[in-house]
Amino acid sequence: MALQDDPARLDIANYPLRFTSRVLFADMDSFRHVNNVAIARYIEEGRAACLIEVFGTDALVNPSSERLMLFASGIIDYIAQAYYPGEVEVGTAILRAGKSSFQFGHAAFQNGKCFALADGVMVKAPHGKAAPLTAEERAALLRFNFGGGQ
Amino acid sequence: MALQDDPARLDIANYPLRFTSRVLFADMDSFRHVNNVAIARYIEEGRAACLIEVFGTDALVNPSSERLMLFASGIIDYIAQAYYPGEVEVGTAILRAGKSSFQFGHAAFQNGKCFALADGVMVKAPHGKAAPLTAEERAALLRFNFGGGQ
Amino acid sequence: MALQDDPARLDIANYPLRFTSRVLFADMDSFRHVNNVAIARYIEEGRAACLIEVFGTDALVNPSSERLMLFASGIIDYIAQAYYPGEVEVGTAILRAGKSSFQFGHAAFQNGKCFALADGVMVKAPHGKAAPLTAEERAALLRFNFGGGQ
Amino acid sequence: MALQDDPARLDIANYPLRFTSRVLFADMDSFRHVNNVAIARYIEEGRAACLIEVFGTDALVNPSSERLMLFASGIIDYIAQAYYPGEVEVGTAILRAGKSSFQFGHAAFQNGKCFALADGVMVKAPHGKAAPLTAEERAALLRFNFGGGQ
Repeated sequence: MALQDDPARLDIANYPLRFTSRVLFADMDSFRHVNNVAIARYIEEGRAACLIEVFGTDALVNPSSERLMLFASGIIDYIAQAYYPGEVEVGTAILRAGKSSFQFGHAAFQNGKCFALADGVMVKAPHGKAAPLTAEERAALLRFNFGGGQ
Repeated sequence: MALQDDPARLDIANYPLRFTSRVLFADMDSFRHVNNVAIARYIEEGRAACLIEVFGTDALVNPSSERLMLFASGIIDYIAQAYYPGEVEVGTAILRAGKSSFQFGHAAFQNGKCFALADGVMVKAPHGKAAPLTAEERAALLRFNFGGGQ
Repeated sequence: MALQDDPARLDIANYPLRFTSRVLFADMDSFRHVNNVAIARYIEEGRAACLIEVFGTDALVNPSSERLMLFASGIIDYIAQAYYPGEVEVGTAILRAGKSSFQFGHAAFQNGKCFALADGVMVKAPHGKAAPLTAEERAALLRFNFGGGQ
Repeated sequence: MALQDDPARLDIANYPLRFTSRVLFADMDSFRHVNNVAIARYIEEGRAACLIEVFGTDALVNPSSERLMLFASGIIDYIAQAYYPGEVEVGTAILRAGKSSFQFGHAAFQNGKCFALADGVMVKAPHGKAAPLTAEERAALLRFNFGGGQ
């Protein structure tokens, strides 16, 4: 099933964390549209912005081996093309928080039109080994629950 | 099911098209490992190298609206970390060729160890609308069949 | 002489074209600051934004061999470090418009502090050979003159 | 004076440190040539490879505030276009080693043709303040002297 089959995934209102960013000339490729990997970079930024809110800036900028969060799996559905010059808006939500892993949902828009949907799984892995999220960490993640208001 | 649950996916011998590339300093992020999006760039290069073999360089470098191939969906499982300095080897295969779309499988290795597996779907979409692959195109794709020798 | 030796170069007011952009997680490197090449990408975006104003979007997005503008030389002085998360503001001006080439000046700021200055030379080179700028093109460039109001 | 006015700068034999790297699809831009900033990334890699030889991998991958090397200024002359698919070869040399700073020279080639020349200045700046290079460090740098054999 494609991510876009769930109409709720296409509605920015369901993503509590949002940012807008300028598309750069360097984001285009020889197809003269925004490159697929550049879109992955915007999605990564949604994940990073959410992790900063939940775990603090150091978790991303000075990650310690004690509290390491690793990205385990990501899927991106490219449902339309995006263009330069312009802006993109990315919405991010937590879809699930499990024992030691949690799942992101993202949607990327240009001029109000969704052009990409993404899911991603992160694992808390201090010293490279999966370890349980604390109740506090799980609660902090779920403040950004999909469909939840902010 | 994770891509790595199929042991055949971890064997470079099953990917008919392979390339080796230098990891660049710019591929590292603040985690001081190879960044997840940089890995997506290597996987994209596997897809591109295969498309060049099948459809010719112009399909990638000077894509025409007549024969446009669009990337519709990609999944990457990050199963280990990769490091700088070093090299990566990426293997690419065609997993399926359907009516108007086809599916790539990729595996990325460093020092003989697989650190990422990926699947991707492309659609033949001249003028932005899905159109059937010709028998000749399908045959050309299947020359790079997963598990097939080259 | 370093670009920063001219105090006028450090004043955003002297750059008629300005944009603000989000620093992305991917812009950091293993030094956990904004990577030098990522800064070159912001500077390139200043150049691109100015070319779009002067020559139209097609000059950048669908460059034709008839009116090709090529980047011939660029210098960047890195005078401070920039950080993630945050924003950057880039100011761009035309320093000179010659017979077939013209010179950009740029300054990049974070939280009001200049962290990079850059100069760049572009050449009008239809079919890869230098050709004179028209009087109209030169006038359009000089609307973004360094120190000029907008 | 342009860097290319010195014919010695165009001769790969004068650069003791060399590497070859694959051009990736992602290195192209809408001009359908290798993007100027992608070329800056190859040049950065030449600098990084040399620093690893001189100061060890940790200086780049786990830079400590004690022995920090910061990039202060870079110039790149783009003297021809480079293309995808293909490879680039980058040669790197030390042009000068001063009290606390040192200067790199680079040349980038495709199919034996030089398409970019670059100079760069780095400063030893532990804790963000310039500090003198030791005699040992200066000697280690000068093992990669421009024009010197390896």
